[in-house]
This record gives sequence, structure tokens and C-alpha cells, in this order.
Amino acid sequence: MPETYHIVPREKHDALVTKAYLARGYAPEEAAAGARFCSSASYYGIRTHNGIKALHLDELFGSKVGRWKPGAEIEKLPSRFAAAEIWNGRFKLGQAVAYEAMDTCMKLADKFGVGIVSVDNATHYLWGGGYVMEAALKGYIAYTNCTSATSEVVPFGGRTPTMGTNPHSWAFPTQDAIGFPIVIDWATSTVAMGRVQQLKREGRPLAPGWAVDAEGNPTTDPNKAAALLPFGAHKGYGLGLIDELYAAYIGGGLPQIRGTALGDPKEKRASIFFFQVIHPDAVNGNGFANNRTQTQNVKAVIADILGHGNEKCLLPGQPEANSGALSKKYGGLLFTKAEIEEFNHLAAECGQTAWNPAEFKTAEV
Amino acid sequence: MPETYHIVPREKHDALVTKAYLARGYAPEEAAAGARFCSSASYYGIRTHNGIKALHLDELFGSKVGRWKPGAEIEKLPSRFAAAEIWNGRFKLGQAVAYEAMDTCMKLADKFGVGIVSVDNATHYLWGGGYVMEAALKGYIAYTNCTSATSEVVPFGGRTPTMGTNPHSWAFPTQDAIGFPIVIDWATSTVAMGRVQQLKREGRPLAPGWAVDAEGNPTTDPNKAAALLPFGAHKGYGLGLIDELYAAYIGGGLPQIRGTALGDPKEKRASIFFFQVIHPDAVNGNGFANNRTQTQNVKAVIADILGHGNEKCLLPGQPEANSGALSKKYGGLLFTKAEIEEFNHLAAECGQTAWNPAEFKTAEV
Repeated sequence: MPETYHIVPREKHDALVTKAYLARGYAPEEAAAGARFCSSASYYGIRTHNGIKALHLDELFGSKVGRWKPGAEIEKLPSRFAAAEIWNGRFKLGQAVAYEAMDTCMKLADKFGVGIVSVDNATHYLWGGGYVMEAALKGYIAYTNCTSATSEVVPFGGRTPTMGTNPHSWAFPTQDAIGFPIVIDWATSTVAMGRVQQLKREGRPLAPGWAVDAEGNPTTDPNKAAALLPFGAHKGYGLGLIDELYAAYIGGGLPQIRGTALGDPKEKRASIFFFQVIHPDAVNGNGFANNRTQTQNVKAVIADILGHGNEKCLLPGQPEANSGALSKKYGGLLFTKAEIEEFNHLAAECGQTAWNPAEFKTAEV
Repeated sequence: MPETYHIVPREKHDALVTKAYLARGYAPEEAAAGARFCSSASYYGIRTHNGIKALHLDELFGSKVGRWKPGAEIEKLPSRFAAAEIWNGRFKLGQAVAYEAMDTCMKLADKFGVGIVSVDNATHYLWGGGYVMEAALKGYIAYTNCTSATSEVVPFGGRTPTMGTNPHSWAFPTQDAIGFPIVIDWATSTVAMGRVQQLKREGRPLAPGWAVDAEGNPTTDPNKAAALLPFGAHKGYGLGLIDELYAAYIGGGLPQIRGTALGDPKEKRASIFFFQVIHPDAVNGNGFANNRTQTQNVKAVIADILGHGNEKCLLPGQPEANSGALSKKYGGLLFTKAEIEEFNHLAAECGQTAWNPAEFKTAEV
């Protein structure tokens, strides 16, 4: 059933989000990065990580509770390694740090073929797919992982959530081959806790394999669900563990108390970011079949995977590309009436005029 | 129920495997790398990728069918990138190429913080976990992926196998923190095709989610199973796709005909390897809580994850470490009687004296 969306011009959205960040004390460049990011998330249909969510997270974990530090400057630590930078994020706004880290990785990859940036004392960067997608659109193979704000996932076979939903995001610059970058981007839990809470509100059962109760037994009762399970059993557990290990090597503290005020006050509570970019020329063996170029080869391989009866399969990144095409077609960002109302709460908070849904064109999608 | 294992001295095993590779025309350094690898796989309990399997794969895909090229020399292609090498593997024995690539990555990581090696025209490296584990034991964070010899996996929602079981292997140098390196190493299919064939022989059903029939419908009937499913639905599909994409950028051909003689004779059939190493100092933010060192921090984080009621959870790499401890305890490699017989087929092939099971000590494990 089609839903009605209000088409908000990007400039109007960005002006409000910028104002909202400024009102919370963030520096102009942070507010600009915040708006740029939220705008991009909405453009590509990432409704779970739009401006509303970004500023809500800032309330829960950020400037409103004194944990994130508006206006902080990144400290670039000394490194004896030319292709690797290590930063102290100092709780600067996550989107600003992530954009700068990805830019640095691309410069390192231009020079060395591969570049990495590790960020200690990081906050939340919302949708990792956004950063790697932008790098891919600039022609790079990009990757990021981070530890989540809090720990909601049990290790495989466990009962207490001592790991984050710890996402991984990869992107490949396939736009010249197939029209959009392939973006593989997901949390390592089976679902998000938000989905469990939604089903709880609606009185509906969880799917098997999503959650455990307080004793670590599998449950489909949303009222008993105490923690999430990793997707794919031991394999997803291993993937979630990778983020915890990167964090442990970089500077992260005990995962069970991350994002909380519990335990030893001298322990750290920050998330950690890791970024990596590879220049596609740095892996190009130049020996493609039938004299194909690298791009033609990528196109041929993808066509082969989605051929032979697999034509209906989606590629990761296709839904984002479809949403982006819609945003482009309608010339703005698509929001529901309920989302417009949420933005108006933000407008009220920072003394801006509320949006009148009637002022926007609409689209039935 | 305990099983009886024969304890074969490592030297005796390595001498036979070396001879078997030499008899098939491989150069001494290839045969040595092959033996070193198979020895390591058996030491760590990787019974699916021991010397018997390695030489069997050489029969199916390798020197016996003229595809792998004993004695080939790696061609190191020109690269303008200091931290990235690109090699033409020229179908040299996979274990020799993989060891050398990992050594090169470590040297690059020593200098640049991170190093990558991409290998076109690669063969089969058997157990990716072995290479990353060795690098981790030397103190590095290591990663590898490769495309499988053939394509047995359908894309998520598809019906024709156009992707390999495409494994990923990560290892972290956690031995000083917890006694062994964490090794996360698995295929991106739910199970191996060998497991499906085993259940078919035994007349037992498959588990749901493992396989599809020729029309792409899920099936638990091993007689109808035509292809494997990725683990974890779209997430595992994305992970399998990553290997295909690396391969496509490096030099791999059409996945559906990889490892076959089908289709356009000018298409390539080779697998592709990708290797990466990060020096742990290159991600070290030196800001650990409670004045912990990096190693102490890694130890504290792992203890936290496996604490709080999660004490019975296994870490990836623990089973391999347990097997290694057994091999060490018994002073040799543990093989069943059936495995000894398989080795004796190899001995006969290369004119060596058969092993007499009675000459070995035994262990009930």
C-alpha cells in the first residue's frame, strides 16, 4: 500500500539540522557534517538513521548528557607508520570525525594503495554505509567498523550481553559497471533492539533466533527478551567480536559497561571507529579475460552472478540506490507526516519556525 | 566416545607429503611449503584440510589435470603503491604463494602499518585460517579472502550457484593475552557441499536453510539439493559477494564457470587470493583505561566478553588451540587408521614405504 511522503527540499532540511546541532553547542563544521550526513541518510532511504535519530542519539548519549564534546578538536597521534593514522577523537561529533577519517584514508590510499585510520574516544557515526558509499562514489574500495554505543548482544552460547550490535560496512566503486556502488552494511546482531521493542509494543512474537531471556535461553516472547543473538550463530559472533577486538587494540574499554555509568569510574565508555580504504588500482592485476578493463570485468562478474536464473536477486546497495533515485526524481528528501512532526520538535527546541506539511509537495510511494 | 589416533611424528609426515608433491613435479620449495602447511593443519586439528585433502585437490583441480603449474615462478607486477603488491600467481602451488604473500604483507605492515597483496591466477590455499594464525602468532592482525575453486552457492533469493563458498579468515595476536590467537575462519555458505554429500550417503535429511533444489526452492532432501545457501541470508550473501568483488577487481573471471571447462575458452577459471596485515602498533591509541598496556587491554576486554555468566562460551580459535595442545602433548600429528590408509595410497603413488599403523604410538582422544 503506497504511503504519502512530503518532499522536503534538501536545503531546508540541512538548515534545520544544522541549527539543531548549533543550538546544542556544536561547532559550525560539526553541524555542517551532521547535516550533510543526515541529509545523505534520508536521500538514500535510511530512515532508521536520519536527522531525527541523529539528534535523538545526541540526547541519549551525547551532548545532552555531557558525554560527547561539541567543538572538540581531533588529536592526531604520532605514528611511525606512513599508511596508518591514529586519532584521539575526543568525543567530537561522530559524523565530522568519520568524514574526515574517510578523506584521510582516501589520501593515504592514493599514495600507498591502502590507508587506515583508527579513532579512540569516538562517539556514534550512525550509518557506516554512508561513509563507505561516499568513498566508493569517489572510486575507492572502502570499509569501516565500530563498536556500538551499548552492549546488547550475547556471545554465541552465552546469556549476558557483553558485545555491541557492532556493524561492518563495505563498499565497492561499482557505479560505472552497474550504475550504483555495492554497499554491504549491517549489524552483527540478528535484528536491532528497536525491532524487538516495536514487536513488544504491538504484542507480537519475535522470530526464532533473535533473542535470549535473562538465563540465555532462546525466546520468542518480546517481554522476556533480555538480549539479542548474533546473526548466523558462531559466524556472526565472530564478526561482532572483530569490532570488539579492533576496539580493544585501539583503546576501547570493557564492552559490558560501554555507554553506561556502571562499574569502575576509571574505565572508558567510548565507542571506537576503524576506517580503511583501498585504491582499486592497487589490486589491479591487469590480466582480465577477453581484454576487459577492470570496470568491464567487474560488470561481467556481477552480470554472471545475477544471471542464469538469478535475475531477481538484489545486490546490496540496490535498495539505497532505488531510494536515491526517488529522492532525485522528486527533487527532495521524502518524509512521512510523523517524521515532519518529529522535525518540528527539533525546530521548537532551537527556536526555528515549524514546517507546515502543507507547504511541501507530496508523493505516493 | 573416544577415538583411537595414531601419533605420526611430524618429520615422518612432512617427508611423505614433500615426496608426494615432488613426485607430481612441484619444486622443492613448493613441496616444502605444501608439507609445512599440511602439517600445520593436522597439528591444529583441521582434518578437512590436511595432507590427504591437499593432494586430492591437486588431483581434481591441480597438476593432475594440468591446471596448476608445478615450479611456476610468481610474477610481481609493477605497482605505484608502496604498501600494496600485485602478483600474478601463475598457478604456482597455493600454499607456497600464500606463505610468501603473508610474509610480504608483514614486511609492508612493519613499514607502513598496513600492507596488502593481491594474487591473480591463484590456485587453492586450503585453510585460510592457517596463514592468518601464523601471522597472528608473529604478532600481527591478519586477514585473507579468496574465491573458491568452483561455484556452489546461490545468491540470496536465487536458484543457480554463481558464487563460491568464498571463505574469510581473520586472526588477532591475542596469544599473550589469552594463550592463543583468536582465529575467525569460515566459508560463507551455511555448510560445505561435502557435508551435504555425506548426509546423502547416509540417507539423512539436511537442516533447513542449507540448500536449494534446481528451481531455487529450499529443500532438506539431500537428493534434491542442487546448490548451497549463504549463511545468515542477505548478510552471508554480502560476505560471499565481497570475495567475488575483490576477485573481479584483481583479475578473476566469470564465477559460474570458475574451476570448470565450460563456456568461452578465453575466459579465466582461476581463483584469486587477497591478503592483508596490520601492525598492532599502527592502531594503538595508547590511551587504555587504568593504565593498561595494549595487551592487557585486549585481555581485559576478552575477559569482560566471556564474563558475567558467559564463561562457557568459546572463542574462535579455541578449538584449534585445543587441538594444537593435544598434538604437543602427544608429540606428533594425530591421525585415524582410515587416514593412515589414505596416506599409504600417497606413499604408494610416490614409491615410498607404507606406514604401518603398529609402528606409531596411539592416543584415545
